[in-house]
Amino acid sequence: MSKILIFGHLNPDTDAITSAISFSYLQNAIGKNTEPVALGIPNDETQYALDYFKTKTLRVITKASEETLEVMLVDHNEFQQSVSDISDLTIGAVIDHHRISNFQTVNPLYYRAEPVGCTQTIILKLFKENHIQIPPEIAGLMLSGIISDTLLFKSPTCTEEDIKAAHELASIAGVNVNVYGLDLLKAGTNISDKKAEELLSMDAKSFEVDGKKVRVAQINCVDFNDVFCKKAELINAINKEISIQNYDLFLLVVTNILDSDSKILVLGNAAPIAENAFGITLHENEAILKGVVSRKKQIIPPLTKALSNK
Amino acid sequence: MSKILIFGHLNPDTDAITSAISFSYLQNAIGKNTEPVALGIPNDETQYALDYFKTKTLRVITKASEETLEVMLVDHNEFQQSVSDISDLTIGAVIDHHRISNFQTVNPLYYRAEPVGCTQTIILKLFKENHIQIPPEIAGLMLSGIISDTLLFKSPTCTEEDIKAAHELASIAGVNVNVYGLDLLKAGTNISDKKAEELLSMDAKSFEVDGKKVRVAQINCVDFNDVFCKKAELINAINKEISIQNYDLFLLVVTNILDSDSKILVLGNAAPIAENAFGITLHENEAILKGVVSRKKQIIPPLTKALSNK
Repeated sequence: MSKILIFGHLNPDTDAITSAISFSYLQNAIGKNTEPVALGIPNDETQYALDYFKTKTLRVITKASEETLEVMLVDHNEFQQSVSDISDLTIGAVIDHHRISNFQTVNPLYYRAEPVGCTQTIILKLFKENHIQIPPEIAGLMLSGIISDTLLFKSPTCTEEDIKAAHELASIAGVNVNVYGLDLLKAGTNISDKKAEELLSMDAKSFEVDGKKVRVAQINCVDFNDVFCKKAELINAINKEISIQNYDLFLLVVTNILDSDSKILVLGNAAPIAENAFGITLHENEAILKGVVSRKKQIIPPLTKALSNK
Repeated sequence: MSKILIFGHLNPDTDAITSAISFSYLQNAIGKNTEPVALGIPNDETQYALDYFKTKTLRVITKASEETLEVMLVDHNEFQQSVSDISDLTIGAVIDHHRISNFQTVNPLYYRAEPVGCTQTIILKLFKENHIQIPPEIAGLMLSGIISDTLLFKSPTCTEEDIKAAHELASIAGVNVNVYGLDLLKAGTNISDKKAEELLSMDAKSFEVDGKKVRVAQINCVDFNDVFCKKAELINAINKEISIQNYDLFLLVVTNILDSDSKILVLGNAAPIAENAFGITLHENEAILKGVVSRKKQIIPPLTKALSNK
């Protein structure tokens, strides 16, 4: 029988890649035949975690139906964030912590979503429920997912459960949460040697509301100027993406991980909707969003609401 | 703060009603303020369980947004099977064992689905995970849900977990699974004093595939003739529903709980699709489906497939 493929979303972040690894480890430990794969190459932050815990980079796929009938999704459920032929596959399981949208199956499945900060916090529960021990390197990767998604517990998406899980995993992995955590996040802010196209695709998600196509890309930094010194180049690249993909709205969210604020760059015909959504006025397509760090909790819900009210 | 309302699907069956009761009990035990309600009156089988375990009938609602902001769904997720104003409400949790379709949220939520025979089997796990003791009468209602959904373990949807859960719950409730189980199922087959309209609405679900509106009603019996002696009356009532609701296809599935076979009555413009779906030829709108007892596992998947291939 062909292997069940397990993967996170397109433009994978650290949670997407490490959750595929940890959930596949768990599934294999309880007797399934699975392989973790990725829908894109790891970003610098994820690569830092993989190197630190001596784990091989995952095989990248763009289609799955040629090699398997069944897949399991981690850290996403919306079909437009998944493998291109997702509609042709049987989805055996989903482990996620996002809203549910544009997702459907023909058959009943295992679906486990909780409103926590990171998929790994849920996967830790599953390890316990199945009485499977977590090897130190897997625990380290799971910890990395939590640090990344919660910005070292600073994101409003972070829950008590995430913090507790992170400390438990750190002790199995044998690392100091704060020291390792800041090193991991900083590894992801190396922007200087990257082209605009690359910066836009590092961690980006698309969604549709009432027929409007929206894309929200996010970049972490330790200084807004590291990104905005490339503003002209970024605007060109965003406009190119808008015209190719027909986006109505493109938000680039640049998040300062030290101050926990974001600066957004907004383009597209529906840009005024972003102004309504956040109660801001764009100046030269820019605005500061004080205290905003979470795309899932602070960007997508107000955008969705503003788009639905149109 | 207003109470969180918890309910199962429209045209509630025993699992829909008893799962609202048991999940609400659990939520209240862990500190939430919830009330179990129903989207319809209990059928005879459910009423037998409620009477046996001395539980009050649930309040029936048709709208929820006038009295609460948040709801939790059990035993369903598809919006067309839910309360009429579901799109205006925050869905805090879903506990279900069906496929996922026509379901979406703006925010992350708790979603727990497993491919088991009954929602109560999942709720039993949740009681254990939260270390909450189950009172005997709640255990009895949970057991009733499992017996009803699995036709006393004869349905192909029934898993080892359901059987184990049922025996565990029977021992808490202090009843014999087989004796109580057959009494419960028989209580649901009292057809003689019911009008056709009533029989069609006892346990019916609607869904849409590729723009085609489908309704599948199911009736349990101990003899097909008990139902088919009212065939003319049933055809009239089905045709009336088809014209009012614009169904493309209406299936009445009559299931003999002693023999584990079903006889279907099929009407609507898309009736030939049902013939393709099950590889049958309808005679006077009827056909026998040998060994078919489960709408979820043996009726809806082939129908969905045949409708998608059109």
